[in-house]
Amino acid sequence: MIKKIDHIAIAVPSIEEARSYYENVLGLKLDHIEEVAEQKVKTAFFDVGGVWIELLEPTTPDSTVAKWLENNKGKGGLHHIAYESDNVAAELSAAESKGVALIDKAPRKGAGNMNIGFLHPKSTGGALTEFCSPA
Amino acid sequence: MIKKIDHIAIAVPSIEEARSYYENVLGLKLDHIEEVAEQKVKTAFFDVGGVWIELLEPTTPDSTVAKWLENNKGKGGLHHIAYESDNVAAELSAAESKGVALIDKAPRKGAGNMNIGFLHPKSTGGALTEFCSPA
Repeated sequence: MIKKIDHIAIAVPSIEEARSYYENVLGLKLDHIEEVAEQKVKTAFFDVGGVWIELLEPTTPDSTVAKWLENNKGKGGLHHIAYESDNVAAELSAAESKGVALIDKAPRKGAGNMNIGFLHPKSTGGALTEFCSPA
Repeated sequence: MIKKIDHIAIAVPSIEEARSYYENVLGLKLDHIEEVAEQKVKTAFFDVGGVWIELLEPTTPDSTVAKWLENNKGKGGLHHIAYESDNVAAELSAAESKGVALIDKAPRKGAGNMNIGFLHPKSTGGALTEFCSPA
């Protein structure tokens, strides 16, 4: 069952260049920067009233986020939305049983040691969607 | 000052077609549907732990959301993020004083009779960004 929105992920070519907008214009405080080697991204987290803004910077040219940026003319933008659930595996299998295409058939590890799993955007009206739960 | 994320807006060609994913797969409850004539959109709101998911459907071919969908190959997707502030006019002028390009020089009315104002995505790393506050 979905409890809340955990984070909104925003793809950026460079966290170092992007963070000044979040810190100085929006007035948000950078909580931490974390590399997720498996996903070939560096992530930066800002807490906004209990929901994270997660900046995503690719660390390799073959990162899926690098490809997303290429497809977006090299510009950043809103990348995905993540819903916190108490059971990612159950969310994924329930979604699949309702005909939703999955990117992840089973949960894997994401930033913050969370269990995460993505739905395919062709089944979500184009919005890339993640389920996550604390491991 | 930003208090929280008010909503994540997701552009869809049709709320009637999109809502079943939100209701039946994500298990969210539709709060209400509202037309915002001035912005040429119909909106559908789902509450997720105190943050709204707002589906945006264009009501005319010259709606900015219709153009957004055209540029996105007719597919829906994550459209903008809205931060709740206590003073939209002050947020807009503070942002402008820091060199941020504005779509709205002054607040206007949005869904739910909120005061809203948009920043230009060229100044926000590509993520279309709104400030809003209850009128």
